[in-house]
Amino acid sequence: MTLIEQLTVLLGAGAVLTAEDDVAGFTEDWRGRYRGPAACVVMPSSTAQVAAVVRLCVEHGVPVLPQGGNTSLCGGAVPGTDGVAPVIVNLARMRRVRTVDAANNSIEVEAGCVLAAVQEAAAAQGRLYPISLGAEGSCQIGGTIATNAGGTGVLRYGNTRDNVLGLEVVLPDGTVWDGLYTLRKNNTGLDLKHLFIGAEGTMGIVTAATLKLHPLPTSHAIAWVAPRSPAAALQLLGLFQSACGASLSAFEMIDANQLRIVTEQLPSRRNPLSALHPWHVLIELSDTGAEDALQTILEQVLTQAAEQDLLLDGVLATSGAQRAAMWEIRHSVSEANKKAGVGLTTDSAVPVSSVPAFIDRATAAVHAIVPGLPIVIVAHLGDGNVHFIPFFTYAEWEAVADPEAMAQRIRHSVNDVAHSLHGTFSAEHGVGRTLLNEMAHYKSPVELGLMRRMKQAIDPQNLFNPGRLVPDAPSAPAH
Amino acid sequence: MTLIEQLTVLLGAGAVLTAEDDVAGFTEDWRGRYRGPAACVVMPSSTAQVAAVVRLCVEHGVPVLPQGGNTSLCGGAVPGTDGVAPVIVNLARMRRVRTVDAANNSIEVEAGCVLAAVQEAAAAQGRLYPISLGAEGSCQIGGTIATNAGGTGVLRYGNTRDNVLGLEVVLPDGTVWDGLYTLRKNNTGLDLKHLFIGAEGTMGIVTAATLKLHPLPTSHAIAWVAPRSPAAALQLLGLFQSACGASLSAFEMIDANQLRIVTEQLPSRRNPLSALHPWHVLIELSDTGAEDALQTILEQVLTQAAEQDLLLDGVLATSGAQRAAMWEIRHSVSEANKKAGVGLTTDSAVPVSSVPAFIDRATAAVHAIVPGLPIVIVAHLGDGNVHFIPFFTYAEWEAVADPEAMAQRIRHSVNDVAHSLHGTFSAEHGVGRTLLNEMAHYKSPVELGLMRRMKQAIDPQNLFNPGRLVPDAPSAPAH
Repeated sequence: MTLIEQLTVLLGAGAVLTAEDDVAGFTEDWRGRYRGPAACVVMPSSTAQVAAVVRLCVEHGVPVLPQGGNTSLCGGAVPGTDGVAPVIVNLARMRRVRTVDAANNSIEVEAGCVLAAVQEAAAAQGRLYPISLGAEGSCQIGGTIATNAGGTGVLRYGNTRDNVLGLEVVLPDGTVWDGLYTLRKNNTGLDLKHLFIGAEGTMGIVTAATLKLHPLPTSHAIAWVAPRSPAAALQLLGLFQSACGASLSAFEMIDANQLRIVTEQLPSRRNPLSALHPWHVLIELSDTGAEDALQTILEQVLTQAAEQDLLLDGVLATSGAQRAAMWEIRHSVSEANKKAGVGLTTDSAVPVSSVPAFIDRATAAVHAIVPGLPIVIVAHLGDGNVHFIPFFTYAEWEAVADPEAMAQRIRHSVNDVAHSLHGTFSAEHGVGRTLLNEMAHYKSPVELGLMRRMKQAIDPQNLFNPGRLVPDAPSAPAH
Repeated sequence: MTLIEQLTVLLGAGAVLTAEDDVAGFTEDWRGRYRGPAACVVMPSSTAQVAAVVRLCVEHGVPVLPQGGNTSLCGGAVPGTDGVAPVIVNLARMRRVRTVDAANNSIEVEAGCVLAAVQEAAAAQGRLYPISLGAEGSCQIGGTIATNAGGTGVLRYGNTRDNVLGLEVVLPDGTVWDGLYTLRKNNTGLDLKHLFIGAEGTMGIVTAATLKLHPLPTSHAIAWVAPRSPAAALQLLGLFQSACGASLSAFEMIDANQLRIVTEQLPSRRNPLSALHPWHVLIELSDTGAEDALQTILEQVLTQAAEQDLLLDGVLATSGAQRAAMWEIRHSVSEANKKAGVGLTTDSAVPVSSVPAFIDRATAAVHAIVPGLPIVIVAHLGDGNVHFIPFFTYAEWEAVADPEAMAQRIRHSVNDVAHSLHGTFSAEHGVGRTLLNEMAHYKSPVELGLMRRMKQAIDPQNLFNPGRLVPDAPSAPAH
């Protein structure tokens, strides 16, 4: 029997997609930038089925491509155009919330659960699953684990990695590792889950996870302020961290260009302040106590900041509607930018203390390539994560002779600046296929060598999402 | 030249100890339970020296035993009595605080820094390094990383693993991995630091680390209460988590036997309550804001708990001296227990929700072996981590026919109960050599297999702390 026949016997015809129309949604990424052929798409319903699928693929020597909600920004979850066409293992049918243990602040879910469904199951028990990002209505929890997703809650709660207690993984040899621990402390050997978190499907298929929950914050206070400069914004961050500790839950900065694009492209969004200042910061405090107390601290710290001359202007949200409107601006940046033109998004992180230097130097580096090019900036400032976006109108972009080369050159110049400040070229989006060159360029041979040794130890046949995450070793020079 | 001669040329005679008197403090653990011979003890002063030492040991095929402050509870850091005597690499001379970046909330330190010195360097900049444990005055930061140390701050700040941003490691082949990142977000391939954290020196030598700092709490509120039962204590924990979120910084439970031992053995310690209730909980709130606010919340929640009939009694500390006295009881348990008799300490963790069931069942299991044996309990309740300590007087223990077998049988019965509740036999103390049998017994073959593959990939010659952490694979059956 062929592999597809065997898969059909195993899963039933409805769970093995081969017709071009049926697989089209799985073989192309959501932004339409990448596509490649697949042997088929399978939709298993259980961990045992995933394991059986993997064993068949191994027998046939066919690559396996784990896929969640297909919301990757780096082309990590759709097939390439070279090599053997993979079997795409889509986890959408494995979407059960297995258990919520409120007293233990933990939840066990299958990998195909949509992130928002996990948040809802937690909230139903008065708990918070704190990972929150634009794609939360469609990305799957397995994908967020495979990519160590970040988002707007990292400042307080950490990345996805920090919120995973345990995993169930089908390994590349088809065995199942049941590592579904729900413990806060467990010092019994290597903490194996970290081999799979952020591995982008190269080390096996995550089929289920146990996750940390937190008390659900019941009160919020939000302000929208205009700091004098990124350096002033950093001083403001320091004041909030000293005064509020862990109740500081967001500190998001955008520049004037970004705010202008949002308000122009989406007219229902309005600048909360009366002038378009150069920098804007959304500050959120969240806690489980009384709302008045948060509002008071927020006012106190902003008064202190004004006394230190850090602010040009600022306003506190006084209603839920105002709070929502402020967050809506922040959440609209991708949609607005897509309407406005071509943004060469980057995803740098640097030490928080180096953000002002990064912005200055990256701007200079880009302007050395295209003088005066507008820069759009969206920063998770509290994490040192800056989406620094050199921005072209569609008309300008069409006039560029070699757009691919221009995009690479500009992005690389930004990544160079981040690297020189001990930063990184991928803070939260991952590597996928887009950033393999940067991996080869910036990572030390020792570090790449360690990653290759791990891959070789877990997937010696190199069948799991081959050619992603870690670039192949340079070939030995010919004799 | 012999290895020792080569090491002496490399490091100078003062940094290579061979005389029996000189090495005695390094070849025996602090409790005097384990000792074994060493080829020598070397005390390198730099990462380059450590790397050169490793290369020499590899050349000679001599095992390498990394050693920090030698405060392991599991015999993980002193030589065994079989196999080739290792070179002990003691990091005490590498104790520089390299940099503190207050704005980035990070610190870079060498591995030999004593934990308390790291805390002090952070505090000098208004920051907190939150790992805190009994041995903090002598354990080294490298050792806390190699063992993923826990302690009393885990409830709020996580384990050591959660507070490491990056590492510098001399690998078993003598190359140096510079992974001293200071970033909050960095999704560029596998997060390699987790291969070394908690690896107990089996995967290389940590020579430096970058660590997360936190705002230094400036206000504290502490209460000492007597809940009706462990189940009532859990309900109380839930009330505090809902009301205080992240400002809950400790929730430590001891039983009447433990409190009695402390107050009897160390007469300066006094029971904060007027009666010896069956269970006692120390609750601490810490924050960066005003002390009054914390005290108010603490009172409110305790009032709520009293209304729900969860408490037999309770008292709030009203001065710094009272707070210190309450913590002193908690910190005196090891010293007092050592004076009082032989405690068969265990280090279980279970899901927080299962702690009451664990205590009941473990008590029954031990009493099935020794009817009526007193049990001493010290629990980091908020983490589900229970030190469940069956307790013999010295006289009783001397009457036990085969003490080694008795200790094993009793501990194993406790570990069985933890395992049946999806718990672990080592929450924070690690594995070392003491718990290798339990590793072999409780861990799945898949999990042990993955750990062995990692070890094989990083240390194929098995020279780094051999025979620790992961038990050898069972030999194949003879044909």
